[in-house]
Amino acid sequence: MVNFKKAQDIINHEISVIEFIREPKELYDPVNYVLSIGGKRIRPALVIMACSLFSEQITHAVKPALALEIFHNFTLLHDDMMDNSVLRRNKPTVHEKWNRNIAILSGDVMSIIAYKYLSDCPSGMLPSILELFTETALQVCEGQQYDLNFETRNDISVNDYLKMIELKTAVLIAASLKMGAILGGASLADADLLYEFGKNLGIVFQLGDDMLDVYGSTDKFGKKIGMDIIANKKTFLILKAIEVADNETRNQLTELMSSNDFDPEEKISRVMNIFNQLGIKEITQEKSGEYYDHALKTLDMVSVDHESKSTLKEFAKMLIEREH
Amino acid sequence: MVNFKKAQDIINHEISVIEFIREPKELYDPVNYVLSIGGKRIRPALVIMACSLFSEQITHAVKPALALEIFHNFTLLHDDMMDNSVLRRNKPTVHEKWNRNIAILSGDVMSIIAYKYLSDCPSGMLPSILELFTETALQVCEGQQYDLNFETRNDISVNDYLKMIELKTAVLIAASLKMGAILGGASLADADLLYEFGKNLGIVFQLGDDMLDVYGSTDKFGKKIGMDIIANKKTFLILKAIEVADNETRNQLTELMSSNDFDPEEKISRVMNIFNQLGIKEITQEKSGEYYDHALKTLDMVSVDHESKSTLKEFAKMLIEREH
Repeated sequence: MVNFKKAQDIINHEISVIEFIREPKELYDPVNYVLSIGGKRIRPALVIMACSLFSEQITHAVKPALALEIFHNFTLLHDDMMDNSVLRRNKPTVHEKWNRNIAILSGDVMSIIAYKYLSDCPSGMLPSILELFTETALQVCEGQQYDLNFETRNDISVNDYLKMIELKTAVLIAASLKMGAILGGASLADADLLYEFGKNLGIVFQLGDDMLDVYGSTDKFGKKIGMDIIANKKTFLILKAIEVADNETRNQLTELMSSNDFDPEEKISRVMNIFNQLGIKEITQEKSGEYYDHALKTLDMVSVDHESKSTLKEFAKMLIEREH
Repeated sequence: MVNFKKAQDIINHEISVIEFIREPKELYDPVNYVLSIGGKRIRPALVIMACSLFSEQITHAVKPALALEIFHNFTLLHDDMMDNSVLRRNKPTVHEKWNRNIAILSGDVMSIIAYKYLSDCPSGMLPSILELFTETALQVCEGQQYDLNFETRNDISVNDYLKMIELKTAVLIAASLKMGAILGGASLADADLLYEFGKNLGIVFQLGDDMLDVYGSTDKFGKKIGMDIIANKKTFLILKAIEVADNETRNQLTELMSSNDFDPEEKISRVMNIFNQLGIKEITQEKSGEYYDHALKTLDMVSVDHESKSTLKEFAKMLIEREH
C-alpha cells in the first residue's frame, strides 16, 4: 500500500515533467503556471493510494489521477476569477497575472486537458471512470453556484452550507478515492465505501479550513487570520453562531457580517468574542468529529486487511490534525 | 442517406425535449436558454448525415451529435463574454441576461455535459470518439485565443487568419463529419477524407460569413451590414485588401480600421469603396471557390456510391449559395 507521502512524490514528479508546449503560448502558459505553483496534490495522491489498496499495479492510475488534479486546478482558476481573488498559493491568480479573457479560456482548455488525461486509462474501465468523473464535475460546478448564490442570500442554514461544501469540495475527494478503487479492480461495494469515506473526510477538510481562518496561526497556514470574517464569508462557524445565538447576539453578528465599514481588527475581534461566548470552536470540532468518525467507520467496512487501510487512516488523521 | 433537413429535424426534436432540471436553477437555466434559442444545428446534423453514409443505424449517433452541438454552444457562450457581445441570435447573451459569473460557470457546466453526451456511445468506439473530440476541442480553444491575440496585433497576414478560422471554426465541422463516419463504421481512410471535406467546407462557411457582413442583405441574414467594419474586425476581406492595396490605400484602410472615431455610415462606405476598387469580393469568392472545389474532390474519394454522397454535396452547395 502506497502511503500519502509516496503518492504525493509520484504525482509531484509527474507534474514536474508536464509542460504543454502547444501554441498559442498565451493559452498554455497559464496552464503550465497554474500546475507548477504547487498545492498538496491531495486528490491525485488519493487516486494512487486507493488504487494501491487493491492492486500492486498503479502505473495506469497515474494519468487519471493527474486528470483530477488538472480539473481541480481548473475550478480554482475560474473560481478565483468569480471571487476576484488576487492571490492563490501566494502567487498572482491567472486573471491578475494575465487578464480575464485568458483566464476564461485557459480554464476551459484545462477542463478539456483533464478529459484527455482521464481517457488515458484501460479502455474497459473508461465508461465507468468517465461517468464518475462527469457526475462529480457537474456537482463541483453546482457547489460553486450555490456558493455564489449564498453571497447575496441572508437565509442560509447550516444544512445548506454543509450541502454546498459537500458538492464544492467533498465529492471530488470522494471521487478520487472511488476512481482509484475502480482502477485497482475493487468491487463496486468497496469503491462506494471509499467514496463515502472520502466524502465525509472532505467535509472534515473544509470545516478544518473554516476553523483555520479563525484559529489558525498565520505562519504555519500562510494566510492571515480572519480573512473570511473580513470578507463577510458565510462559513460553518458564522452560520452556526447565527443559529445558536440569542436574538441580541444574532443581530450584532448579522450587522457585523453585512457591512464593510468596520475596522478590520475590531471586526475580527468582535466576531471572535461572540464565537468564544457561544463555544463555536467546540461545536465545530464536535461536528467535524462526527464526520471523521463516520469516515473511519466506513473505511473499516472496506474488504481489505486492516494493515492496508492504515495509510488511509494516517492520512485522515493528518487532515484533522492540521495546525489550529 | 439522411439529408440535411431530415438530420436537422432529428436534432431539433432531440434538443426540444432536453431540459436540465438539476439544481441550482441559476446554473442550469442558462444552459436550457442557450440550447433553446436555436441555430442551424449544422454540426450535429453533419454527424447524423455522415453516420448514415455508412450505416442505416443512426440512433447511436444522436447523443454524440448533441454533444457537439452543446460544446459549440458552450464556446459561443464563453466567446460572447470575451467579446462583450450583447446579442446572440437576436437574444440577450447569458452574461447580459444574467451576469458574468453565471456565464462562466454555466459555460463550464455545458462543456462537462458535452462529455456526458459524448460518453453515451458504443463503448468500443468510445476511445476514438473521445480522442477526436478532445483534440478538436483543444484546437477550437486555440483558434479563439488566436482570434483574441489578433485584436491587438497589426501584423496579421491572410495566412494567419486562415489558420485561425481553421482552428476556431473549420475543425469542429470537420470533426462532426469524422465522428459520424466513425459511428457509422467507416474505415479510417474514409473518416479522414470526410474530415478533410468538412475542414475545407468550414473555411468556405467562415469566408461566407465574412462576405455576408459586407455584401449580405440585412433582412435575410438578420444582421446589419458592416458590423465587422465598425468593430475593426480583421476579416479575410480586410486582410486581403491590406495585402493587395498600394501604399496609399493601405494607409487609408489601416487608419479607418484602427479608430472608433469615424461616423459609422461613412466608415462602412469608405471601406466598401476600397473593397470595390481592389476587387475584394471577387478575390474572396475565388479563394472560397478553391476550398469548395478541394472539399468536393475529397468527398469524391470517399468509398461510398455517388448517390449516397449527393446529400452532402447538396449541403455544400447550400452553404456556398447563402444569400450575398
